[in-house]
Amino acid sequence: MASLGDIGVSAFINILSAFAFLLAFALLRIQPINDRVYFTKWYIAGKRSSPRNNRGGLVGKFVNLNFRTYLTFLNWMPQALKMSESEIISHAGLDSAVFLRIYTLGLKIFGPIAVVAFLVLLPVNATGGTLFFLRRDLVVSNIDKLSISNVRPRSYKFLAHISMEYLFTFWACYMLYKEYDRVASMRLNFLASQGRRPEQFTVLVRNVPRDSGRSVSDSVETFFRRNHPDHYLCHQPVYNTKKFAKLVRKRDRLQNWLDYNQLKFERNPNKRPTKKGGFLGLWGETVDSIDFYKGQIKLLDTQLTMERQKVLKDPKFVTPAAFVSFKSRWGAAVCAQTQQSKNPTLWLTNWAPEPRDVYWKNLAIPYVSLTIRRLVIAISMFALVFFYMIPIAFVQSLANLEGLQKVAPFLRPLIEWKVVKSFLQGFLPGLALKIFLLALPSILMLMSKIEGHVSLAVLERRTAAKYYYFMLVNVFLGSIAAGTAFQQLHAFLHQSATQIPRNIGVSIPMKATFFITYIMVDGWAGIASEILRLKPLAIFHLKNMFLVKTERDLEKAMNAKSVDFPEALPSLQLYFLLGIVYMVVTPVLLPFILVFFAFAHFVYRHQVINVYNQKYESAAAFWPHVHGRIIASLVISQLLLMGLLSTKKAANSTPLLIVLPILTLTFHKYCKNRFEPAFRKYPLEEAMNKDTQDVAFESDDDLKSYMTGAYVHPIFHSFQEVELDEVRVDKNQAHITNPSPTVCEDKRSQSIHTVYHYEFESQNRVYRHDIESQP
Amino acid sequence: MASLGDIGVSAFINILSAFAFLLAFALLRIQPINDRVYFTKWYIAGKRSSPRNNRGGLVGKFVNLNFRTYLTFLNWMPQALKMSESEIISHAGLDSAVFLRIYTLGLKIFGPIAVVAFLVLLPVNATGGTLFFLRRDLVVSNIDKLSISNVRPRSYKFLAHISMEYLFTFWACYMLYKEYDRVASMRLNFLASQGRRPEQFTVLVRNVPRDSGRSVSDSVETFFRRNHPDHYLCHQPVYNTKKFAKLVRKRDRLQNWLDYNQLKFERNPNKRPTKKGGFLGLWGETVDSIDFYKGQIKLLDTQLTMERQKVLKDPKFVTPAAFVSFKSRWGAAVCAQTQQSKNPTLWLTNWAPEPRDVYWKNLAIPYVSLTIRRLVIAISMFALVFFYMIPIAFVQSLANLEGLQKVAPFLRPLIEWKVVKSFLQGFLPGLALKIFLLALPSILMLMSKIEGHVSLAVLERRTAAKYYYFMLVNVFLGSIAAGTAFQQLHAFLHQSATQIPRNIGVSIPMKATFFITYIMVDGWAGIASEILRLKPLAIFHLKNMFLVKTERDLEKAMNAKSVDFPEALPSLQLYFLLGIVYMVVTPVLLPFILVFFAFAHFVYRHQVINVYNQKYESAAAFWPHVHGRIIASLVISQLLLMGLLSTKKAANSTPLLIVLPILTLTFHKYCKNRFEPAFRKYPLEEAMNKDTQDVAFESDDDLKSYMTGAYVHPIFHSFQEVELDEVRVDKNQAHITNPSPTVCEDKRSQSIHTVYHYEFESQNRVYRHDIESQP
Repeated sequence: MASLGDIGVSAFINILSAFAFLLAFALLRIQPINDRVYFTKWYIAGKRSSPRNNRGGLVGKFVNLNFRTYLTFLNWMPQALKMSESEIISHAGLDSAVFLRIYTLGLKIFGPIAVVAFLVLLPVNATGGTLFFLRRDLVVSNIDKLSISNVRPRSYKFLAHISMEYLFTFWACYMLYKEYDRVASMRLNFLASQGRRPEQFTVLVRNVPRDSGRSVSDSVETFFRRNHPDHYLCHQPVYNTKKFAKLVRKRDRLQNWLDYNQLKFERNPNKRPTKKGGFLGLWGETVDSIDFYKGQIKLLDTQLTMERQKVLKDPKFVTPAAFVSFKSRWGAAVCAQTQQSKNPTLWLTNWAPEPRDVYWKNLAIPYVSLTIRRLVIAISMFALVFFYMIPIAFVQSLANLEGLQKVAPFLRPLIEWKVVKSFLQGFLPGLALKIFLLALPSILMLMSKIEGHVSLAVLERRTAAKYYYFMLVNVFLGSIAAGTAFQQLHAFLHQSATQIPRNIGVSIPMKATFFITYIMVDGWAGIASEILRLKPLAIFHLKNMFLVKTERDLEKAMNAKSVDFPEALPSLQLYFLLGIVYMVVTPVLLPFILVFFAFAHFVYRHQVINVYNQKYESAAAFWPHVHGRIIASLVISQLLLMGLLSTKKAANSTPLLIVLPILTLTFHKYCKNRFEPAFRKYPLEEAMNKDTQDVAFESDDDLKSYMTGAYVHPIFHSFQEVELDEVRVDKNQAHITNPSPTVCEDKRSQSIHTVYHYEFESQNRVYRHDIESQP
Repeated sequence: MASLGDIGVSAFINILSAFAFLLAFALLRIQPINDRVYFTKWYIAGKRSSPRNNRGGLVGKFVNLNFRTYLTFLNWMPQALKMSESEIISHAGLDSAVFLRIYTLGLKIFGPIAVVAFLVLLPVNATGGTLFFLRRDLVVSNIDKLSISNVRPRSYKFLAHISMEYLFTFWACYMLYKEYDRVASMRLNFLASQGRRPEQFTVLVRNVPRDSGRSVSDSVETFFRRNHPDHYLCHQPVYNTKKFAKLVRKRDRLQNWLDYNQLKFERNPNKRPTKKGGFLGLWGETVDSIDFYKGQIKLLDTQLTMERQKVLKDPKFVTPAAFVSFKSRWGAAVCAQTQQSKNPTLWLTNWAPEPRDVYWKNLAIPYVSLTIRRLVIAISMFALVFFYMIPIAFVQSLANLEGLQKVAPFLRPLIEWKVVKSFLQGFLPGLALKIFLLALPSILMLMSKIEGHVSLAVLERRTAAKYYYFMLVNVFLGSIAAGTAFQQLHAFLHQSATQIPRNIGVSIPMKATFFITYIMVDGWAGIASEILRLKPLAIFHLKNMFLVKTERDLEKAMNAKSVDFPEALPSLQLYFLLGIVYMVVTPVLLPFILVFFAFAHFVYRHQVINVYNQKYESAAAFWPHVHGRIIASLVISQLLLMGLLSTKKAANSTPLLIVLPILTLTFHKYCKNRFEPAFRKYPLEEAMNKDTQDVAFESDDDLKSYMTGAYVHPIFHSFQEVELDEVRVDKNQAHITNPSPTVCEDKRSQSIHTVYHYEFESQNRVYRHDIESQP
């Protein structure tokens, strides 16, 4: 157990490093050269096109020469607070606004709890406890004097802890209820105030049965025309674009090389860049690089055009999925929320994700395959959580000195140096662990993709859920109960149901200092490093140096990240768990959590306003998960307190505490029934309201032209775009050969027409319009 | 452990008693006087109106004098088999037909399993086992020699058991899959071939928000007219009829007395029956009974008419629920399966149960109350299952001799007789237990009613589920692990997760003989007593003697029961559990189960054809529960086998067996997704198909008049009916004051019209038509 002094030192170091990060950020952000890294969002929103502090000639273009701004370098904090919530919603979307609310929820829950706990529980713990008669210096230096450990076994003082657990649970539930209510109504308002969007009218149909006699497109048309005669408008097939996507990626790579070489040539006009034509540019005859890449790209464009034609014409490339659009939101709401066919594994309908949000690769997975995928992923997830440490331990055992000596005997003299040896011994295993942990989010995302979800939003939520389980077992339980997760699993299976919370509960107070340190390292310093954006900064400058040629390239180089939900949500939920578990046991931990929530709220608020650009808008669809996991934390805390108290021989407390989890779970169930439908369903009343309000497009034809092309695979757009910019020679020809992939009413696949350019334009207009028209 | 001889004796006794029951049944059923008890269904279906064997004058009316029929007294068995499944469906409904399929499913699953188990496992168990070298007579007399107990610890022979568990599980799953598929398609066909029925067009709306300015009826009208403008037809409010129902019950009682006295007078025309007018007929002046009751009934009729008028006119009596009818099945399907309002606790829509099936009392329960009710019932159910024995033990302790002596000291001389004493000591505690167990189904049904389900079918299914949990814990686990359920619960909490199946598993083979006896007593003799219908027989004859006056009374006295799902399903599922648990452990048990399934199939087939009259038709909605519980049995069996094998030190078997529950549960999940929607949802394709086929009623007005009155509280009908039959004097007046409780389109509550008689007529016609038009 660390002493208060140790914690003081740790706090000092972490505060210092947090301040160092903040200082670096404050200095870097006012340099014009970094403007696009720290104000990405404004550039993307089109509200800024050049650095603000741009004065002082050539040097001033890169370095901030206005020394007055250095004096006010912390003014981003009040600036971040200035924007109101509704402004944030219109600026960055509801997802970001609600994400920020999680931090304020933390403050709202733990603020009053901390005050009450300090007023009530600290005196109860501190006075007349088991540790009171020990030597003064030992007692004072130990944080345990303020925790529940200090209370004598069988003491009636535990009633204070039990009643506080009740009080805090009720308070947390009350705040959760209010917040769920608020978020649900924010979501409904947001959806209600949204402008006309393609996803409001569109339903994603999967598992369209293959009918030997007719095309998928025909089946869809017939089916919906028969079963939704008054509402069906048109549909857009989904194409299998694997090969096409590969070509597009190849073209992008070649384009990058072309840009690089052209830039090189511009900077040094005397010497045309050359390369060798053979394998990897290592041998063969020397050719002019620019001409070479231009030729390659031209070749590829022809290939792309042919491939595209093939994809759009050949029914083999049509997958058994389609986006079906309806004449009214009511019609779409009905279709999305009902079962269509006798066989519930065919004609599966769901709300279409918004076009940006579609994960195209998973649209065509058959039903049985989905079932098997989910089983396999569930089993692998279980294995991953409980056996994650095994391969790491294996690699670590290889990565020690003996292993290294065996693999590379020539290193022996080097290794035998003492300094190098101790460095390697301390460093290598840690590095191995770090690499594995860095790979974790990608592994989890890959697993979610294999599970077959069809939208990015769901993929990210599923990944967040997996990451949370991992953290719960490997970070929370792993830190409390000694040993690997696998050993814990073994113990779980061989212990009785009442023994488990007892074993964990008893070591909870002892780990308080560890978690305080964890909060400071991960929560304080970690968040401060988030605002600095070192990695995007480096990448931006590298790209700027080698690739950026046009304004569009510059925008691409900014590479605006969105809020990293798969990592941010689980770690947030871990802080809630820590706060809730320790609120009664060791209330001293609460201020650290409060500082984290306040500071992180500042930082993320700044990032959301200035940097992040959301890839999609799910209208806070993640909230039920956040709510559910805070409830789970409450139940975990109650069970652990029961276990802890039973080791304190306050056995009579069990009947008093057993009521609490039941009440908590009932509250959760009530909230689920009361609010969750707002996140999963779309009430017909709302749909009808919006249909009657919205009379901008009067005829079906207007709506049809609006829907046309909304759900075309984005690589068709990207290809088109490149063509328009770069390959103007091919444009006319390309236009003739680019058929519309949308089948509307009487225009079946055979009567392909060429409205592609128009579609893309209208598509762009839709989004620009949406962004601007948000309240 | 019972020897084979003991089992033989038990089998002999049970077979004997089963035959006695069958013989009694065979003799009683051919007596004309009992005809209405044993052929109830045919009378109700209107296909029989007098006993078939009716010859031989006055005596022949009561006793069967045709001695030839006594010789063929077992011919009900082939008769029962003659009817094909589709005939049974049209004769008794899909519920009954599918109920019978459960028994054949048992035969299909356990038949081949029994053959394979006898061929493979019996030799494996019998040869070279631990019990092989014991004394021959001991070995032969013990059934354990044929069970898994006979295999040596650490033997490789356990591989045979493990592979058989795999094989049997796959076989059971295969049969379950085929059966689920079949039942689902039978259900869909049944629904598709049904004639036009009110519930196809009707949705039950609950939690209509109270709007101060307008009536519930108005709110419903406005809401659905706005949100389903193309489909809304009309709606019928639900009235709070508590007081009215009380009056109707009182009138029924008086009517019974009147009938009784009139009958008395008819039989003995010399003496008019009289009664005393005072309290309970004990004192007061003597009055003529017939005149007295006639006067009372007349008085009550006026009261009823007034009360009825009040109920229909006063908006206070309208509950916030309504039956909303649509112009098409498509419209109703859409409304029933979507969320209507922003607030998911308001405007809750569900398919309306068929009119016979509605449980009127629960229609108006508010949402919050429902949540609380379910929590309370869940907790009480838990307490009931685990603490059921405690009050029984308490009553038993009171019901012993000492308790009795204290309560009634005057009985002392009687009690001190030795014969009486021993009889009471053996009898009283058993009686107490029996009374409690007899009360159990009613208690469970009451609990289900408190839970707030709105249809009889759901109530019965929920009661069946509760009964199953009770049986699983108190009969199955209670018989295997010694001690009360509460002691088991205590042990569960204090044992490790792997210890529990081990403890139970190890005593499984030892209890085989007990369960064999149980099957014979409860399964063989119990089923045989079911066919005899002793209780309904007695009640019928009593009623016949004292009350029956008209043909309608006779019909009422038949009191046709329906299949008792709340008790029949759980006990069936218990047999599946026993068979599945013992199929690998003690295959000798299987033939007993097979005999039960075959015999019970005969008996129930006969009863379904000749006796039972279903109160409602749920179109086999109970099947998912049956399926789910057989799957649960499979998983329980796998876990117990794992526990058993681990005590046999075949520890390496655990990894081999752990895969099986995972596969089984995945199979279950797949089945659930694949088939369960057929039982919960109504696909739009089907609705549209049926809408287009069905063009019998051409205009909306026809449909409206068809729907009118379909969902009026049945006591309004019964009152009307009585009036029409008995109180002809009042009829005209009643007609004028009986407003229609149905609000259709423009006819709001203020413009009450008097189409009541017509409504009831059409209502009757609807049902007659349905019964006849079934395929």
